[in-house]
Amino acid sequence: MFYETHWRSIIKAVSWRIMGTVATALLVFIFTRKLALSLWVGALEFTSKIGLYWLHERVWDRLRFGKKEVRPAVIWFTGLSGAGKSTIADKVYRALQERGLRVERLDGDSVRDIFPATGFTRPERDQHVRRIGFLASKLEQNGVTVVASFVSPYEESRQFVRGLCGRFVEVHVATPLAECEKRDVKGLYAKARRGEITNFTGIDDPYEEPTRPELRLDTAALSLDESTLRVLQYLDKQVLRVS
Amino acid sequence: MFYETHWRSIIKAVSWRIMGTVATALLVFIFTRKLALSLWVGALEFTSKIGLYWLHERVWDRLRFGKKEVRPAVIWFTGLSGAGKSTIADKVYRALQERGLRVERLDGDSVRDIFPATGFTRPERDQHVRRIGFLASKLEQNGVTVVASFVSPYEESRQFVRGLCGRFVEVHVATPLAECEKRDVKGLYAKARRGEITNFTGIDDPYEEPTRPELRLDTAALSLDESTLRVLQYLDKQVLRVS
Repeated sequence: MFYETHWRSIIKAVSWRIMGTVATALLVFIFTRKLALSLWVGALEFTSKIGLYWLHERVWDRLRFGKKEVRPAVIWFTGLSGAGKSTIADKVYRALQERGLRVERLDGDSVRDIFPATGFTRPERDQHVRRIGFLASKLEQNGVTVVASFVSPYEESRQFVRGLCGRFVEVHVATPLAECEKRDVKGLYAKARRGEITNFTGIDDPYEEPTRPELRLDTAALSLDESTLRVLQYLDKQVLRVS
Repeated sequence: MFYETHWRSIIKAVSWRIMGTVATALLVFIFTRKLALSLWVGALEFTSKIGLYWLHERVWDRLRFGKKEVRPAVIWFTGLSGAGKSTIADKVYRALQERGLRVERLDGDSVRDIFPATGFTRPERDQHVRRIGFLASKLEQNGVTVVASFVSPYEESRQFVRGLCGRFVEVHVATPLAECEKRDVKGLYAKARRGEITNFTGIDDPYEEPTRPELRLDTAALSLDESTLRVLQYLDKQVLRVS
């Protein structure tokens, strides 16, 4: 709940008063051609109306009528490890933040840092994604736009999340497996190939491609900046319009 | 992010203009004693300033200065099954909602309905409470006050949640076990005694009492309305003050 401080109302009253009084004095002068009279009316108006204006502001701050909120959404990035999800999501997040939007960032790695006990078996991953989806939907219901990036490899889990959310934008960061493995930023593909880690998506656990994502980004063909722009353009056109 | 609709600005301008023009016309009349002149100045002022005022409103809507938000908090009800947590929490939630606060309600039963796979062993309960705490903290960080009611029997899990939140208000609904078992609203104590359900708090799983809760409610001595009032009074004094 936002409310306006008394300082805001006072300074707004002064700001308006300067505009208003100049206009009044000018009008009186045009009609009467008496400079002294115009200035007197102006001076009296200035002092009396500044108080009235302040009062008017305080009453209006209590009225909800016509105060609208930008409708939030859940922007969900899915894709293989190393596909570029987090990087693009970070850029989208900052761009939305700069517009003054209330926005939250949820990332697979950082959430797992807080919950180290979360496993990688199918039921564990499924529950994990569902719970994050529930969190995202609760934020959305409370006016917060969510930028989430999770491997989220199972179609069923993502559909569950879609069902919870009001406006769900599924962004498939569709970097091919070969490209992700070539990059191997965190060295995880090598470990998975050596069998040092198991249940690794793309190697010994499936990635179920989204059947109808709102957006599909081929980062082998698009740069990170181009990908970010695609997402923002989509959001501007389809999702975050201010009516 | 809130923004003001054009309608709000226009109607506010009219509302102010009626006050302002009456004041101006009166001032001109007091100085000149000419009724016709006063009405003419008033009429011209009315038409010219309504546009100026509207413009002024649109510019101010862009300025963040002096727009403050009520600081949110996480109000966490803990206690045995049947202690009265949900009922008191519901009443607190509605009271805060009526004040126009942005507030979310999280309840053990309804969250478990969405996540039926959540178990009742110590690690499962611990993880469950931690995850709910994470959700609550994310809502709080985004300006939402959270009213949560969970058995949350382990001190360690609750301390973890406290650590995540900015302003954590732990409310121990301290109804004695004997009283809860006597009520047995959902018939769960009987089932637990018969061994039909296991890991039931108070019977075959411990309830670790909060060591230093912000509030302790003895619902054996206090009615539900009195308990609710205690919580609201505490929040008004310690937590939700608007500076």
